Amino acid sequence: MTLPEAPKAVGNYVTVKRAGNLIYTAGHIPIDKKTKFTGKVPSEISVEEAYKAATLCADLTLATLSSEYKLETLTPINVVGFVNSDPSFTDHASVLNGFTDKLAETFNEKATRSAVGVASLPLNVSVEVQSIFMIND
Amino acid sequence: MTLPEAPKAVGNYVTVKRAGNLIYTAGHIPIDKKTKFTGKVPSEISVEEAYKAATLCADLTLATLSSEYKLETLTPINVVGFVNSDPSFTDHASVLNGFTDKLAETFNEKATRSAVGVASLPLNVSVEVQSIFMIND
Amino acid sequence: MTLPEAPKAVGNYVTVKRAGNLIYTAGHIPIDKKTKFTGKVPSEISVEEAYKAATLCADLTLATLSSEYKLETLTPINVVGFVNSDPSFTDHASVLNGFTDKLAETFNEKATRSAVGVASLPLNVSVEVQSIFMIND
Repeated sequence: MTLPEAPKAVGNYVTVKRAGNLIYTAGHIPIDKKTKFTGKVPSEISVEEAYKAATLCADLTLATLSSEYKLETLTPINVVGFVNSDPSFTDHASVLNGFTDKLAETFNEKATRSAVGVASLPLNVSVEVQSIFMIND
Repeated sequence: MTLPEAPKAVGNYVTVKRAGNLIYTAGHIPIDKKTKFTGKVPSEISVEEAYKAATLCADLTLATLSSEYKLETLTPINVVGFVNSDPSFTDHASVLNGFTDKLAETFNEKATRSAVGVASLPLNVSVEVQSIFMIND
Repeated sequence: MTLPEAPKAVGNYVTVKRAGNLIYTAGHIPIDKKTKFTGKVPSEISVEEAYKAATLCADLTLATLSSEYKLETLTPINVVGFVNSDPSFTDHASVLNGFTDKLAETFNEKATRSAVGVASLPLNVSVEVQSIFMIND
């Protein structure tokens, strides 16, 4: 698996933190050196593109985790996905599957998930995802 | 206590997951075989009806927990409630009390809670609630 | 450090709860005896004022924690910040830094963070922040 470069925090926080056997990752947004997914779903960006945005959030989350931990020691526990959406949007599951498909494929295990549509996101990105993992080391 | 049937995940995730002594439940939405609460609070659904929606979220969360754990081994720790709301809505507490009243009644103990109003929710439901419990087994 | 009075829960929940070595705080809002920060960012309240609102959320969270624990036994782990925003808002980081600057200054350590813009918040406050700490006692 080829991962992008681990993202830096955009503000006064860290991107990953351990508490006992839990690993928290900050909200990850779909921006890397080559790509940036912005706009509201579905009026400004399609569900299909927003799925790709969520996949990039997952790749960046994995990059963050890889920078400090071995992925094979981790189990995904919880995912909260925020979709930058129009008020009438209803298909959050199809967007967030981009994140949890990647997680399920990587860890061969599924997490719990919440998916909601928010009024706005930092830098106008289309999706932001925070996760929690358990470590067994 | 009569509980509804435990809901299935609508997407690539699981509805409940254990990490050490913590039990995470996915965002639960107010849809069962008989009922579906949809629309924005308060323009499309009243606070009173949204309270009932939150109660159904709690019943479904309890059903999910019951499918894997004995409720008497659990303590509610944290609740995050997302209300599908108009931008002018201010009474999130009265909606989310539908969830936490049920929890307090069931476990005789209260959790921490966050209550926010979101721009949209999956399937246009009126509320979605994610929770964390501690298990003592 | 002088802290405000610890806030009371506005609804059927508690403001702080321990689960093992984790301490969860409820969503804290920027209202104390003297001050109340309300309105949407940036049309009704500026980013600078909303930063102060987030700082007050931090002060109140520290007051809540202090009422039950010694702050020097705690490490900040995770922060989820909800900004009451216009749909076009993009500078959530500058608002939430008000919360995490205070945390970093108090604990000399940074947490993970998610920052999102929501459609509405209880009592029309401008920001709401939930956090998780680890305790070492």
